[in-house]
Amino acid sequence: MAATSAPAANANGSHASAAARVGAPTNPMATALLTDQYQFSMAYAYWKAGKHADRAVFDLYFRKNPFGGEFTVFAGLEECVKFIANFKFTEDDITFLQSVMPTCEGAFFGYLREIDCSDVEVYAIPEGSVVFPKVPLIRVEGPVAVVQLLETPFVNLINYASLVTTNAARHRHVAGKSKVLLEFGLRRAQGPDGAISASKYCFMGGFDATSNVLAGNLFGIPLRGTHSHAFVSSFMSLDDIPDKTLKSKDGSRVCNDFVSLVKEWLQKIQVADSLSGAFGETNQSELAAFASYALAFPSNFLALVDTYDASGIRLDSGDLAYLSIEARKVFCAIEKDFNVPGFGKMIITASNDLNEETIDALNKQGHEVDAFGIGTYLVTCYSQAALGCVFKLVEINSKPRIKLSEDVAKVSIPCKKRCFRLYGKEGYPLVDIMIRESEPSPKAGERILCRHPFIESKRAYVVPQHVEELLQCYWPGKSNKPRAELPSLEKIRSRCMQQLEKLRPDHIRRLNPTPYKVSVSAKLYDFIHYLWLNEAPVGELQ
Amino acid sequence: MAATSAPAANANGSHASAAARVGAPTNPMATALLTDQYQFSMAYAYWKAGKHADRAVFDLYFRKNPFGGEFTVFAGLEECVKFIANFKFTEDDITFLQSVMPTCEGAFFGYLREIDCSDVEVYAIPEGSVVFPKVPLIRVEGPVAVVQLLETPFVNLINYASLVTTNAARHRHVAGKSKVLLEFGLRRAQGPDGAISASKYCFMGGFDATSNVLAGNLFGIPLRGTHSHAFVSSFMSLDDIPDKTLKSKDGSRVCNDFVSLVKEWLQKIQVADSLSGAFGETNQSELAAFASYALAFPSNFLALVDTYDASGIRLDSGDLAYLSIEARKVFCAIEKDFNVPGFGKMIITASNDLNEETIDALNKQGHEVDAFGIGTYLVTCYSQAALGCVFKLVEINSKPRIKLSEDVAKVSIPCKKRCFRLYGKEGYPLVDIMIRESEPSPKAGERILCRHPFIESKRAYVVPQHVEELLQCYWPGKSNKPRAELPSLEKIRSRCMQQLEKLRPDHIRRLNPTPYKVSVSAKLYDFIHYLWLNEAPVGELQ
Repeated sequence: MAATSAPAANANGSHASAAARVGAPTNPMATALLTDQYQFSMAYAYWKAGKHADRAVFDLYFRKNPFGGEFTVFAGLEECVKFIANFKFTEDDITFLQSVMPTCEGAFFGYLREIDCSDVEVYAIPEGSVVFPKVPLIRVEGPVAVVQLLETPFVNLINYASLVTTNAARHRHVAGKSKVLLEFGLRRAQGPDGAISASKYCFMGGFDATSNVLAGNLFGIPLRGTHSHAFVSSFMSLDDIPDKTLKSKDGSRVCNDFVSLVKEWLQKIQVADSLSGAFGETNQSELAAFASYALAFPSNFLALVDTYDASGIRLDSGDLAYLSIEARKVFCAIEKDFNVPGFGKMIITASNDLNEETIDALNKQGHEVDAFGIGTYLVTCYSQAALGCVFKLVEINSKPRIKLSEDVAKVSIPCKKRCFRLYGKEGYPLVDIMIRESEPSPKAGERILCRHPFIESKRAYVVPQHVEELLQCYWPGKSNKPRAELPSLEKIRSRCMQQLEKLRPDHIRRLNPTPYKVSVSAKLYDFIHYLWLNEAPVGELQ
Repeated sequence: MAATSAPAANANGSHASAAARVGAPTNPMATALLTDQYQFSMAYAYWKAGKHADRAVFDLYFRKNPFGGEFTVFAGLEECVKFIANFKFTEDDITFLQSVMPTCEGAFFGYLREIDCSDVEVYAIPEGSVVFPKVPLIRVEGPVAVVQLLETPFVNLINYASLVTTNAARHRHVAGKSKVLLEFGLRRAQGPDGAISASKYCFMGGFDATSNVLAGNLFGIPLRGTHSHAFVSSFMSLDDIPDKTLKSKDGSRVCNDFVSLVKEWLQKIQVADSLSGAFGETNQSELAAFASYALAFPSNFLALVDTYDASGIRLDSGDLAYLSIEARKVFCAIEKDFNVPGFGKMIITASNDLNEETIDALNKQGHEVDAFGIGTYLVTCYSQAALGCVFKLVEINSKPRIKLSEDVAKVSIPCKKRCFRLYGKEGYPLVDIMIRESEPSPKAGERILCRHPFIESKRAYVVPQHVEELLQCYWPGKSNKPRAELPSLEKIRSRCMQQLEKLRPDHIRRLNPTPYKVSVSAKLYDFIHYLWLNEAPVGELQ
């Protein structure tokens, strides 16, 4: 499934070769038309006013951590870089745009025909990083009309990616490191690439495998899956199994009638003292299905055991804590009574509408589940449907701009900024700080004042042990800055795991987590408030 | 943006030509690999047991109406039909599957290489129909291994489509017929085709337009959009406007200095008695942006008015009821005082985190909004993240199958069934009834007993005025049934509107809606309970 939406022929050779190097977006539908109509209306109005080439700086950020938590994992960057690398209108696109904007002058479409992202610069925090509200995840610089057209696809590509990665990371946190987490969301996600994105980003956030075969193919994510209830009910009886031969893995031993062996064991188990009552009546179609499945997958047999009545080994209904403990008892008794080494450690997988809360409840109650299969709540991000990323103009032609709002949380932080993470003595990140581009960088060992961007009284001096610059250059445009590499999915996943481990535990805990501090330099603070006063209307009480 | 995932070469000429006629899925990623791993595990186990060609019948249905309502709109069928028309594994797919199923016999992959959907039959309720729990939306018949592979993509393609169409229909219901509804969800949906699907299905459910340009291109949905806050703040002052000329639409009159005209009017309005206080200080960058936008779009000007302070005409923050009423007063005063006919009727659009509840609250409070722009809550289906469609085996080799559960709502209705909607004297649908395939159809004017499938005491005689068979043949496979046409999006949208209008109002109201009745024939009732007793284990109390 190569995503083959080839970029249109492009006069700018270096831009075209960059596109070839970076590759196309995963979804071939992520083309330059995937944007809001008003971006084109604005592009036209900019063009009409002769402003389209004005150099603009936009910040992409979010205002609030999702899921009632105090951290977010940043994801979707690679898709954004692929998007701009291939950003170009085809002749069909232009024809369509002309048809829906019939009042616009023809020359405007000539302009659209020419544009690409060769003059756009993109700076971003590395994908898989832990990030916090208000700090720009991506800073985009370039001709205002072009960058404006990128707003919608960038927000679209980052919003759900970051939300579901964060959700996955939260599930990993509550499940603990030793459990296996399986993403089973394909059938419940928002269509095909809701599902494909979910599989990619859940893996990034700490899941071990997916059920989604296409995602396995596209991203190399390990695949997992057993069988469904339909498989069980498609069998009538053990007579449905024509070939009863089972060979050992190395081929050295052969069991000629596995079905008789199954019957024999069933009888042994039904009369065993230690299991009295655990096995009453056996459903023949279930038995036939399991035997048949075992013949097909002798080395990785995993049975879904609740089509008729729950008792044994993907549990998909009922009281999962209780059933997992009972199943474990049976396995241990069989290991002991019949001398089957390792049988007691058989893997118990649980599924059925699991989420962060139910796993937390299972932990509190005690359970014997080894692996969780999670779908709906994970991929639809049930407890918070959107991250709410925004893309705000912070500077145009080197003039800082601010967006005011009666709601202080919605006021934007003006200026082209650089962003740093300051680490304390114990190795934990202490605070993120945004500074104006012209200011000197914070340095390890040097005291710096960190101010809350809007609340005057909230400020603190910090002497960082270590300073990390957050925004790196992923698309240099016409500047000659070196381009940061796009790492593999495995590497991004490791970054995410490491960053979460480095975080002070109280920021990440489920109950009443402590907010991580996000600040601005004293200079930026003063400038924000100067600009704010300048732009805000003076009210008149009547 | 043609979806060009061409079907692989296919020996079955009629199947290949059907694919060409039906077209490819909207998203080129909707290929045969877009399924759960366990479907392949099962396909292999069926194949190993020699059961892969067993003739199976599966029903796709849901168990509960979403959003606390009592109706659902069925959507996504066209994508399913396109999916099966193009269902075929490529050589790359086969190579990948071999790599992830290394223990499976080679001949199995030869089998996978050969299969397509030429021997599959698909029956479905027409897309855009109002539907209810338990009634099959789609019935799929065919070789069990093939139909099993369709489970995940079908559920994926129907689930979100039906959910978001229903959500859109609910928004239309609460907004009323006269309001304009605009879907603005692209930036908040689950990635690119979450957004594209949302745009398509919101239009189907009764929205008038979308902001999503690609959806406009793919489906012919009307496009709408004005400008963002960034556009406003990109202007500094009226000096930013180089070309101040404005021509009337027919070119007969020219205003050489529109900017001076704007200033003149602003002064007139500021001193007008009837508007005293409504216009205090004017933000110069906002004024310049509006003037500039008006010059670009003289015949469809719509200004976003709350970048600095809310007063006039897409409202995107604040108290929308109050602001819309105040804005209307100003428009009416200007119409009257300055003799500008029609100015009072200027369109007021509202956006900002709108949903069913907030529109209902606005209605109760009174407002002057003409058009609603709705994004996040609409496309993410915030109040219910998934519909929960299931795909259950109901018959294999003509033997009916049932899936039991301790939760009665999860028990499946066995048998290959036909389904009918019975209408009463007043033209309203009264009840849906499922019957066994061998039973005679219900007839208008003939009394029939409709039974609740699981509750013995719930039953009623009905003499239908009119009888409608629900399931139609959309993919005849090797049968020679006529194939129902896939109508245009516009026609599906009309069907949806008409069906909702035909529904008894108490089924559709927001508060305490009455459940619509879904029943089975007396024969089917008896058979379900015979099978249930046969399959259910007899418990043992200890």
